[in-house]
Amino acid sequence: MIKRWIGIGVACCISLGGMAQSIQPGLMVTAEEITDIREARGTVPLMDQTIDQAIGKMAAVLDAPIDVPVPKDPGGGYTHERHKQNAKELRTAGLLYQLTGEQKYLDFAQQMLLEYAELYPTLDRHPVKKSYAPGKLFWQSLNEAVWLVQAIQGYDCIRKALEDSTREQVESQLFMPFAQFLSVESPEVFNRIHNHGVWAVAAVGMTGYALEAPDLVRWAFNGVPTESGMPERAGFLAQLDALFSPDGYYTEGPYYQRYAMVPYLQFALAIEHQEPARKIFEYRDGLLPKAVETLVQLTDAQGRFLPLNDAILGMSELAPELILACDLAYQYGGQNPQWLDLANRQGSVLMNGAGLAIAQGLKAGKAEPFERRSAWISDGAEGDFGGIALLRMGEDANQWTVVVKAASQGMNHGHFDRLGVMLYAGQTEVLTDYGAARFVNVVAKEGGRYLPENKTYAKHTIAHNALVVDQASHYQGKWKKGQPHAPNLKHLHLGQEGVQFVVASEAHAYEGVDMERMVALIQIPGQRAPIALDVMTVEAEEAHAFDMPIHHLGQWMEMPQSLQASERALYPLGQANGYQHIWQLASGQVDQNQGFTWLHEGRFVSMTFDTTDVDSAFMGRLGAHDPNQNLRTEPMIMLRKSQGKTATFAQAYEIHGGVNSNTERVAQPRSRIDRIASLFQNEQYGCLLLEGMDGTRYRFAYCKQQVDPTDSQAMEIEGTTIEWQGAYSFEVIEPTHTH
Amino acid sequence: MIKRWIGIGVACCISLGGMAQSIQPGLMVTAEEITDIREARGTVPLMDQTIDQAIGKMAAVLDAPIDVPVPKDPGGGYTHERHKQNAKELRTAGLLYQLTGEQKYLDFAQQMLLEYAELYPTLDRHPVKKSYAPGKLFWQSLNEAVWLVQAIQGYDCIRKALEDSTREQVESQLFMPFAQFLSVESPEVFNRIHNHGVWAVAAVGMTGYALEAPDLVRWAFNGVPTESGMPERAGFLAQLDALFSPDGYYTEGPYYQRYAMVPYLQFALAIEHQEPARKIFEYRDGLLPKAVETLVQLTDAQGRFLPLNDAILGMSELAPELILACDLAYQYGGQNPQWLDLANRQGSVLMNGAGLAIAQGLKAGKAEPFERRSAWISDGAEGDFGGIALLRMGEDANQWTVVVKAASQGMNHGHFDRLGVMLYAGQTEVLTDYGAARFVNVVAKEGGRYLPENKTYAKHTIAHNALVVDQASHYQGKWKKGQPHAPNLKHLHLGQEGVQFVVASEAHAYEGVDMERMVALIQIPGQRAPIALDVMTVEAEEAHAFDMPIHHLGQWMEMPQSLQASERALYPLGQANGYQHIWQLASGQVDQNQGFTWLHEGRFVSMTFDTTDVDSAFMGRLGAHDPNQNLRTEPMIMLRKSQGKTATFAQAYEIHGGVNSNTERVAQPRSRIDRIASLFQNEQYGCLLLEGMDGTRYRFAYCKQQVDPTDSQAMEIEGTTIEWQGAYSFEVIEPTHTH
Repeated sequence: MIKRWIGIGVACCISLGGMAQSIQPGLMVTAEEITDIREARGTVPLMDQTIDQAIGKMAAVLDAPIDVPVPKDPGGGYTHERHKQNAKELRTAGLLYQLTGEQKYLDFAQQMLLEYAELYPTLDRHPVKKSYAPGKLFWQSLNEAVWLVQAIQGYDCIRKALEDSTREQVESQLFMPFAQFLSVESPEVFNRIHNHGVWAVAAVGMTGYALEAPDLVRWAFNGVPTESGMPERAGFLAQLDALFSPDGYYTEGPYYQRYAMVPYLQFALAIEHQEPARKIFEYRDGLLPKAVETLVQLTDAQGRFLPLNDAILGMSELAPELILACDLAYQYGGQNPQWLDLANRQGSVLMNGAGLAIAQGLKAGKAEPFERRSAWISDGAEGDFGGIALLRMGEDANQWTVVVKAASQGMNHGHFDRLGVMLYAGQTEVLTDYGAARFVNVVAKEGGRYLPENKTYAKHTIAHNALVVDQASHYQGKWKKGQPHAPNLKHLHLGQEGVQFVVASEAHAYEGVDMERMVALIQIPGQRAPIALDVMTVEAEEAHAFDMPIHHLGQWMEMPQSLQASERALYPLGQANGYQHIWQLASGQVDQNQGFTWLHEGRFVSMTFDTTDVDSAFMGRLGAHDPNQNLRTEPMIMLRKSQGKTATFAQAYEIHGGVNSNTERVAQPRSRIDRIASLFQNEQYGCLLLEGMDGTRYRFAYCKQQVDPTDSQAMEIEGTTIEWQGAYSFEVIEPTHTH
Repeated sequence: MIKRWIGIGVACCISLGGMAQSIQPGLMVTAEEITDIREARGTVPLMDQTIDQAIGKMAAVLDAPIDVPVPKDPGGGYTHERHKQNAKELRTAGLLYQLTGEQKYLDFAQQMLLEYAELYPTLDRHPVKKSYAPGKLFWQSLNEAVWLVQAIQGYDCIRKALEDSTREQVESQLFMPFAQFLSVESPEVFNRIHNHGVWAVAAVGMTGYALEAPDLVRWAFNGVPTESGMPERAGFLAQLDALFSPDGYYTEGPYYQRYAMVPYLQFALAIEHQEPARKIFEYRDGLLPKAVETLVQLTDAQGRFLPLNDAILGMSELAPELILACDLAYQYGGQNPQWLDLANRQGSVLMNGAGLAIAQGLKAGKAEPFERRSAWISDGAEGDFGGIALLRMGEDANQWTVVVKAASQGMNHGHFDRLGVMLYAGQTEVLTDYGAARFVNVVAKEGGRYLPENKTYAKHTIAHNALVVDQASHYQGKWKKGQPHAPNLKHLHLGQEGVQFVVASEAHAYEGVDMERMVALIQIPGQRAPIALDVMTVEAEEAHAFDMPIHHLGQWMEMPQSLQASERALYPLGQANGYQHIWQLASGQVDQNQGFTWLHEGRFVSMTFDTTDVDSAFMGRLGAHDPNQNLRTEPMIMLRKSQGKTATFAQAYEIHGGVNSNTERVAQPRSRIDRIASLFQNEQYGCLLLEGMDGTRYRFAYCKQQVDPTDSQAMEIEGTTIEWQGAYSFEVIEPTHTH
């Protein structure tokens, strides 16, 4: 019962700029791609598996009655979830109709659409009035646009198979008014250079292609006219220009980027199908594939997104949105075989030409391991507004990753962690970030929304591995104050010879305070794993108190003996700005070489610090002022200089040995580093001393500004001149046996 | 260069009872077994892999110089570890000499033995004087015996290849005086019915076989004479009689049983080789294979030993001692194909006939999944001194396990947790046990020994899921007071029809207080997972305070709203008996249906409790009075009845839904059980009401004593008579809609 028209399609398509003929289907998939998939069926395991799974899921859907309820509930409620689900089912039914030609999918999609066509004209704004832009099916028009992006893909797949009268009814009663509601009737959203605007534009543009309605497509590219005429800068290309950096970084961070990219990619794919001459995937120097690459680079060695800004821990490259991203990046970004590796882990592909290419590439054994690389990922539409530094050393599961957050604020999802650092030693998290305080979709926890502790703790500077001045957060904890400023990348050295480092600065987080951070990964010859060095220097006009929090996981094994534990009662570490959420477990002065060792998932981690500028150290645990037990009770360490105009916090991190629970063998439980000291810091240079437990002394001298590799450098420390060529010098120096 | 004598051996062996000819080699392996392994080489993957790994490891050993240092250090120190390592290397060298015939292994073993033969006669007692029974190579004679058990196996493999003069030197200067030191010179250890005695007996007996010294063998079976003549009850068989229950349970619990079994099994294997007529593996109704079976039954669904008494979490069926246990249980316990499954996970076998049988069985595809079963595992030499109840329901990774500790004290490694409960819902730990407070071999933590918190917290009743009376521990926390008493098993029902339960009681833990606990696993028809019901009833002569601690893991999602969190300061839950180590996070009265829900490793767990006898509830977290941060800061809940002569604590546990971090889908976050109530309790019967969120009401009535399946039972509750036949009745009853 395969309909005759399948596989015919329209061979060529004139630009829609001024006319109305579209390829159909031509949003997610084209007729030509459908033919290819049908021919390949049975020979491309990942595609076969994907289709079989979709068929299995739809079998249960087809068995159940269709429900198109009158909108009533907010997010999470029945009518909300039902409409979301309906759109997904429409899309899948349309695709399966194309792929199998089976009437049951057509019948299902047609009936559901007719029910919507009956309901939609009766609807006013949604009864839950909590959004600046309410929808009709949903309480906010964002969901409305998401619905249309999904549903129109399903409709696109069955449109030609419908009777004229049905088509007429569905389009005039549902899709056309729906698209108009999202565009001309909501210009404040549609013309906005914002995530919500992108969804609306994508939905309306895709509807324009599907309905052969050139006005809708034109609006999607140029914005809709308002009372004051056409907007100056609106529509899809303007959004592509503004919301990503040239490196494809999205200011809110990878957790949100994952979701934000969906409408861009969905619409771009439709554009590519309908108007290939636009070369949309090449736009802005191949921005879209580049943004996908950047997104996946922003993961740890286990593929989990780096928790920058508001981010839920655990979300990874296996998130469903990443299947779309990976497949399109492969197909329209030069078929880099590393995407095949990721697709293989994802275990599913798009049911279209891109997905077929992936499945065929895998079948042909073309996959290459996905490589996480060192990089500077610039932020800002022009790429000149800070960024993220990624240092990576080592291979695969043992790869170390340093993340330095020198990016801009990230709007209202941004955290106050300028020059904050995360550190992963292979699979072991060393310096962690709390992420967002939220249990998404868990109704018992504030309805699944952000918890109060997100504002009172997780966003604050003390919640990060970032410097706190006078127990206050960066930019007074106000994102609008932080938004105009970005940190400054001073020097990035990504040499392949076992030394990588980054120097970045931030001058506006606190008035009259300049912060500068150098973080390095160094592979000491003859040692198994690299070490990480971290130096925060701060210079202020007035005297301040400086706190350097260090967040980690695991169980403390060793700590400075001068710390006194609070055995009989616990009190918070402070009163505000997140400090009120940390129980102070121990505190004390520190006045010589000091360090901490902890055991995390069977590995030992040690942090050694320079005590010169540290007059006291604290151990803490989250959980104070937490009436609903919302916080994860993680440990932290804090180094403090109580008073001064300048401070230098220098720490070394290493991972060593571990515990085998079955043999009870304990390997190398002691730190290999005995001492770290900052020997010299000025505008131009920094110099660290590192002393191993075996007495070996290493000196790391580095330039804080980018230098020519052939230029000579020199600094004088206590009468001794140190000279080197290029970005840094790392060398063994004579032992003195004097400490 | 294969020596001529390999594979010849001694065809038959006369009982050593009165004479001196042994099979050689004949401790770990016989010449016949060696021949079989050599023939099978290359066709038995697991054996091949094991031998290849041993060859690889020994290559590095042979490259390094032999070191036989003068004894100096305590446990963990260099000379201690070096001598331990030497014995292992001797053993491996001997086995590899047999297996490969290569001279280098013989040379290595011979040279090391000659060095020991030179050192040993010069040694007095070890300089570290901390043991009641000091050794010479080691600070305690236990290590001395372990050394000999290993070393003599290596020597047994090379003895025939040595020159007469070398043999003479090694035996007269090393092995014979060594064995005499452990036996006639240390009768207080050798004749002791105790773990240390077993090691000495095994070492001396094996040396007797290897040296063809019948006196040593005789002593091993009968004990050594002392000034007061021969001991009444000593030697290997007496130890086998006394230290295991007829079900093969070792009173200290599985973590120690794993280690305690090694000398039994090593010596038994030597006996089997030398004196098969003794049928040592059939002794006491096949005790040794049965003890291995019991040991592995005492693991959770992930194969980790149940942390009964002093036990380090994480030790599992993959521990090296379990390879010996598994292989011998297979070979000498009827070749149950389930052992092949375990051996496969272990990835290694013994390099002897038992190991070969395993490797061949696996090669032949004979393995069957290892099945963890419901069981009553009796304790006490006669099997009448309490025991462990295991209830198991479901398959494989989803199998639920209830553990009720109705066993005896477990000597000085015992914990004060009479009728304590652990609960695993598949891979999810629901009711947990802290285990021992110790970081084995981590020098920074008290030299790797037991931490002070083991005595001040981990052993105490409050650290367990067991009833605490008046904030004191069972038997006043004194193991010698607990040692004469065991709990009483009253009723065990292990039906296959979806209901299993156990009733046990304890009358001596507190004077004048009778405790009784019923724990059930019930599969409600139509539901995916079982639920667990737990009822503790207590009756006392005087009024007391009763605390029911509930230890779990994960993050609290829901809790009774009447609980008030301690937001500004934390204080310990009490002053002594472990209470001083728990920070009180929240407390409050509870006066209606109440429950807790938490999220652990992506799954929701709910506990609903009957509030009738609970006047207040507490939430706590470990970590108070912990100056060295030795404790894992785990959460706990405590239900309290402040004053009364009787109390009933009834709880229901369920696991439901979960969180997917990639899709952010949250499945079934709410408990399905709305209410549990104890309707009736007397000597004979108990009755619970369970009410689902959907209004369905279930009634579970059960007999507290073993009954005939055909007998009729009846109880009257508020004028209504409930009748049933057999052990219990579980039925849906009419809803009343009145709560």
